Amino acid sequence: MRDAVSGLRVNAERFRNNFESLASVGATPGGGVHRPTFSQAHFQARQWFIEQAERAGLEARVDGAGNHSARLQCGLPGSRTLLLGSHLDSVPYGGRFDGALGVLCALEVLQTVKETGLSLAVDLEAVDLTDEEGTYGNFLGSRGLAGKLRAEDLENPSGGQEAFENALALAGLSRSGLLSAGRDPNSIAGYLEVHVEQGPRLAQAGADIGIVTDIVSTCRYRLKFIGRADHSGTTPMENRRDASQGASAFALAARETVLQTFKDCVVNVGNMRFEPGAFNVVPAAVHVSLEFRSLDRQQLQRLERSLFRQAREQAERFQLALQVERLKATAPTPMSSEVQQVIKEAAELLGLRSLSLPSGAGHDAQSFADLCPTGMLFVPSVGGYSHSSQEFTRWHDCVNGANVLLHATLKMSGVMRAVL
Amino acid sequence: MRDAVSGLRVNAERFRNNFESLASVGATPGGGVHRPTFSQAHFQARQWFIEQAERAGLEARVDGAGNHSARLQCGLPGSRTLLLGSHLDSVPYGGRFDGALGVLCALEVLQTVKETGLSLAVDLEAVDLTDEEGTYGNFLGSRGLAGKLRAEDLENPSGGQEAFENALALAGLSRSGLLSAGRDPNSIAGYLEVHVEQGPRLAQAGADIGIVTDIVSTCRYRLKFIGRADHSGTTPMENRRDASQGASAFALAARETVLQTFKDCVVNVGNMRFEPGAFNVVPAAVHVSLEFRSLDRQQLQRLERSLFRQAREQAERFQLALQVERLKATAPTPMSSEVQQVIKEAAELLGLRSLSLPSGAGHDAQSFADLCPTGMLFVPSVGGYSHSSQEFTRWHDCVNGANVLLHATLKMSGVMRAVL
Repeated sequence: MRDAVSGLRVNAERFRNNFESLASVGATPGGGVHRPTFSQAHFQARQWFIEQAERAGLEARVDGAGNHSARLQCGLPGSRTLLLGSHLDSVPYGGRFDGALGVLCALEVLQTVKETGLSLAVDLEAVDLTDEEGTYGNFLGSRGLAGKLRAEDLENPSGGQEAFENALALAGLSRSGLLSAGRDPNSIAGYLEVHVEQGPRLAQAGADIGIVTDIVSTCRYRLKFIGRADHSGTTPMENRRDASQGASAFALAARETVLQTFKDCVVNVGNMRFEPGAFNVVPAAVHVSLEFRSLDRQQLQRLERSLFRQAREQAERFQLALQVERLKATAPTPMSSEVQQVIKEAAELLGLRSLSLPSGAGHDAQSFADLCPTGMLFVPSVGGYSHSSQEFTRWHDCVNGANVLLHATLKMSGVMRAVL
Repeated sequence: MRDAVSGLRVNAERFRNNFESLASVGATPGGGVHRPTFSQAHFQARQWFIEQAERAGLEARVDGAGNHSARLQCGLPGSRTLLLGSHLDSVPYGGRFDGALGVLCALEVLQTVKETGLSLAVDLEAVDLTDEEGTYGNFLGSRGLAGKLRAEDLENPSGGQEAFENALALAGLSRSGLLSAGRDPNSIAGYLEVHVEQGPRLAQAGADIGIVTDIVSTCRYRLKFIGRADHSGTTPMENRRDASQGASAFALAARETVLQTFKDCVVNVGNMRFEPGAFNVVPAAVHVSLEFRSLDRQQLQRLERSLFRQAREQAERFQLALQVERLKATAPTPMSSEVQQVIKEAAELLGLRSLSLPSGAGHDAQSFADLCPTGMLFVPSVGGYSHSSQEFTRWHDCVNGANVLLHATLKMSGVMRAVL
């Protein structure tokens, strides 16, 4: 019996067909996908997922936060639920693996368990969580499900209030639904997620599976450098208060600061928006999207102070005003050491080389880590490309990820009765 | 008779009422106007102009380039037409004077001439020219009317092809209409325009009226710095090809180049557009809107070479590719010396201090300078603010501008018969 369970593998052919089918939804010419949260392609991908779940005889559900689930009641009545999650949204013009792979692995695990008729100590739920990428607000779905969303969290959606309202309406969701989507924590047995590494470390180390130790802390700010609109032909250069100069000098200084002084951290100026943005008007204001990350809370605070000093200095240098708005700050999140051990054993059972490493990217697992045993496993990203259509993971690594998730799930659930 | 004509003045009260009424169209909270070409507010302003023309008993016309005209047949049959022009479009969130003042002065001159029953050697036409500010393409209306638009000039509209097509359809215009709007050059007797200075020089010199000697040469380019999209949390800083860095370093270098080496020129990075523009994606590309100006053609070429060397160097420094697209280049344009003399005499007749100066801004007059006697006069801009809601010209200076336009018109036309 134990041998039969140890020998269980996912259906690699079905898994592959599902992968190709899903990757065609919102496909871009570059070979990636464009599925921002609540776009038509995103809705289509979620619909595809629900249809697959129903076809497989799983129970489909959508909650108030828009999370789409496929459930398998394989535990005794009243069992808690082990969540196997990830997300089907993408960054603009992103890759086919980020998020989607985790949802497909989860679906495949449920189908495999269902087909083998295993009874476990828990029910299983494959869940496509809403807006992991933060088109409107990072981890809206997982924070909603974990009961952590507050009304104030919805006050400054990334795309602006109007776009958020329109998108919610399109999705058939509401603020009150998001705020009341929290489940009873006692109903959740744990959370597991497969994800692509999105960095080069596993490949460099020749490892098959990454065991996530901690998830990085991420801060997001919006800076506004404020100058004065003037005619670009008639205003002497010396008289200008050109917001582009402060924003540009800050973008360069932020990178240098991290390269020189904060080697374990990263910083990104992901966007600048110019006002009014015309050829013949000196920029009156530039809105800067700033993000920085660290695995250490104190280092993050030092970096924050250093970046803001730079922003103030560059604003003064060009006679600009500066506004700073904090959008998000997550604490560094350790993964459960027990779950790390479970993943390690599952990899060993499959004869795969694992490597423990922190995650430089944020993930929905952060929302669950203080509620229940939570863990993540990575598969290698060729070249480390991510948030790009060039993102790529070799197919056998994807299958390894699904099989490690299967065996980690079985180990976490405890196999109650095998009907093989 | 001569004295009666010399004593003619515009109706300052009507002029003021018209100014206030027009300034309410597309008014912004900051006290300016937002009337980009083919916006609803722009259509409203043009409609307002046509209604005023009809109410005043002038003949209203719209041509294939969308230019809106009020005509007064005050010459003998078959007379040529003296154009009195400017524009009713604005930059985004611009001021109330730029363009609008010139159209209102022209309308006021026609009404004054009509009321006094003067017959002139020419017909008069007050014309609101299309898209002076270049929302889609600078001077579309005046270039169309002057027969200078070619099909290739419409291939790269500033806002993109789709936006341009939609806007043309909204305006009831077409490409073929724009391209065939050219008038017989022999039908045009001259072109005169009143405009706010948009700079500080008249006020600094204590002058009432500026006589434009030359119009600056303007070059517009779109630069695209191309890097690679990567995950902002998982990609080591050293491995990034971050397009924001090249664009930012270029924006700083462009300003320094002009300040250090090209003191008579100006440069503006009016906009940057980031791709994909997300918090958590390293910018894959940044589109830079670049404009620079000079009164000297050779200096402009040296500046162009210097700026492109800077752009290439900064692209290389950050391992980026660079694409350069030329959008526009106008030659420096001298104004007619005869018309400058006419404006000078008109100012003297009114007891006003005039100052000759070049225009750092481009104007529709450029389109007519090689077709017919062309001239411009400026009124002072308080503080030199322009392309901003802070733009301001004192009311008595506006009235001076209208009266100088009136007398310059009479001098250019030759008073044939006064029926005072």
